[in-house]
Amino acid sequence: MSFFFEVLHTSKKSRARVGRIHTPHGIIDTPGFVAVGTNGTLKALDNHVVNESGLQLMFCNTYHMLLQPGPHVVKAAGGLHKFIQRKGPIITDSGGFQVFSLAYGSVADELKSRGTRKTNGTVLKITEEGVFFRSYRDGKKILLTPESSIEAQKDLGADIIIPLDELPPYHIDPAALRRSFERTHRWEERSLQTHLKNPQGQAIYAVVHGGTDLALRKESCEFLAARPFDGYAIGGSFGKTREEMIAMLALTLPHLPLDKPQHLLGIGDLSSIERCIPFGLDTFDSSYPTRAARHGIVLTKQGPLNLTKTCYAQDFTPIDPACTCPTCRRFHIGYLHHLFKASEIPAQSLASAHNLHFMIEFMAGYRQKILDNEI
Amino acid sequence: MSFFFEVLHTSKKSRARVGRIHTPHGIIDTPGFVAVGTNGTLKALDNHVVNESGLQLMFCNTYHMLLQPGPHVVKAAGGLHKFIQRKGPIITDSGGFQVFSLAYGSVADELKSRGTRKTNGTVLKITEEGVFFRSYRDGKKILLTPESSIEAQKDLGADIIIPLDELPPYHIDPAALRRSFERTHRWEERSLQTHLKNPQGQAIYAVVHGGTDLALRKESCEFLAARPFDGYAIGGSFGKTREEMIAMLALTLPHLPLDKPQHLLGIGDLSSIERCIPFGLDTFDSSYPTRAARHGIVLTKQGPLNLTKTCYAQDFTPIDPACTCPTCRRFHIGYLHHLFKASEIPAQSLASAHNLHFMIEFMAGYRQKILDNEI
Repeated sequence: MSFFFEVLHTSKKSRARVGRIHTPHGIIDTPGFVAVGTNGTLKALDNHVVNESGLQLMFCNTYHMLLQPGPHVVKAAGGLHKFIQRKGPIITDSGGFQVFSLAYGSVADELKSRGTRKTNGTVLKITEEGVFFRSYRDGKKILLTPESSIEAQKDLGADIIIPLDELPPYHIDPAALRRSFERTHRWEERSLQTHLKNPQGQAIYAVVHGGTDLALRKESCEFLAARPFDGYAIGGSFGKTREEMIAMLALTLPHLPLDKPQHLLGIGDLSSIERCIPFGLDTFDSSYPTRAARHGIVLTKQGPLNLTKTCYAQDFTPIDPACTCPTCRRFHIGYLHHLFKASEIPAQSLASAHNLHFMIEFMAGYRQKILDNEI
Repeated sequence: MSFFFEVLHTSKKSRARVGRIHTPHGIIDTPGFVAVGTNGTLKALDNHVVNESGLQLMFCNTYHMLLQPGPHVVKAAGGLHKFIQRKGPIITDSGGFQVFSLAYGSVADELKSRGTRKTNGTVLKITEEGVFFRSYRDGKKILLTPESSIEAQKDLGADIIIPLDELPPYHIDPAALRRSFERTHRWEERSLQTHLKNPQGQAIYAVVHGGTDLALRKESCEFLAARPFDGYAIGGSFGKTREEMIAMLALTLPHLPLDKPQHLLGIGDLSSIERCIPFGLDTFDSSYPTRAARHGIVLTKQGPLNLTKTCYAQDFTPIDPACTCPTCRRFHIGYLHHLFKASEIPAQSLASAHNLHFMIEFMAGYRQKILDNEI
């Protein structure tokens, strides 16, 4: 089955839509949650459990797979699906996000440093050719180019791949942002051309840039929409606050073609998803639900619970009696609380299994609401 | 079903026997491996996985459960089986071993210190009444007596419980060893009497002491065999080497009644089990197989493999193609190697699941060899 996207229903109330992304490894119902498995695994769940959970799209990070085990190992194993025993679709990024974000830190880090923190030295040089960086694992110098990123993603063999882009620091002057923006477009064009020489049944999503500059966002959409990308991912800086992000999305998404899937990079908290779905976004990747789980935070329809709180020591009911996840079917809160207090690994895996299931069900609930024109 | 033990076959070649321990929560086939779940869980496997593995006896540590979550919480949940969702039999110890071993360290630690290291200050006082110690969690002073240990184990409700004993340091003069030895017998007697007032369907195993003094071992067997214990656990110091332990066991076990199950405390490496089975030992508890797994060591019939070695990076076969464990059925060595290199939690759980399965199958293999009179 080659890649295609179908919109099944668009809400009468907003641009929210229910669709289906067909990929060589199965269908992704949209709007859908994309779990992050940086190193080819979710952090506390093995891929058999993840396959069983019904997760329809898993995000793996090319940067990490590049350094360990290396794309040649994955290729020798017959591709990422075989290497990690993932049955469903996989999306990989270009590696650029990690190179730049590990160097510059997050927007929050930057805001704290008031723009004085430029880089930690891991990004050695950015040229037209690509980005030279130092491996966080062994200090080796590595050149990542649009071509080498796509080649690595060809070796990995994910269903959806992403072109190399530059993630400029949040504190950047307009002229420098413009230069980075235009270079990123040239990098995306080179990535696309490399991909088209050998599509291998993979789809390639463009990354829309422009930071919080709405004119640049529009220009990025127009530049990328004119090229035969299979989908669009909103990347770059989303600003300092959720409101800034919402304002940007409201004015960006209308410039993208409606017949292609639209992905929001790195945002997966429940309130953001709720705000973003009406703009017509189709998929959302985030490590939040699994990271929160490892810290004892479990998601429920009534809001998050912190399992490490003393008040849960003698609660012998499941997190949610109506939940059908493996954790709620088998274990009660008091035991999960105990496992967190005793720092036992199953605390992290049981909470992660619940949150993953919650996100999958949560998105299914949104799809129903869109079908019912409630959103 | 109340507790009883039946011997199905004794080898024509040795004292090795195949038997069945019947408990309120099911049968334990012997010789059998007992996995250690200190805090009410194996370290990287949730209890659903452990239930599914077919593990027939799980060892939980009263000392740890006493400090977190506390026996009152477990009692409120309806007992340890319900609290931790364990379907099969559980054995708990008295708490004494942890109190003393955390204070004195292991025999190996002691040997390194040449007997100069007496205690780390957590054991505050040992009297006829019991042992005063300081909680490693919050520094609170706790008095553990034979009676309070049994009461705690009544609250936990394991199928098999163990009386309080003193674990004297390895470097101890004969007169002090004798005093400790006699006090331990008085403590075991008091434990037994406390248990008999309210058996609750639980079985109680005596702990045989005497260190490496064979005359004391014989005396301990005779003292304890004269009392209505349901089984016997070999405890105390086993000496510095495996040979010292084997010599001790060869001369100790003939003094125990053949119609009661015999357990070896804290020994579970494959070569020791192999050497011990011919003496008629029935069960072996050890954290070795799961601890080794968390460090990347997996057990195979051909010997242990260290999955973290570079030579396994491109080995895309299971640990053992003939193994039916969840890990070998689904994942190859190269991926497990990668997960260890990337420090991902599923590395630990997948390796643990394999080693647990291996130990269960390994003991089943021994049972067949005994039935065939090969051992």
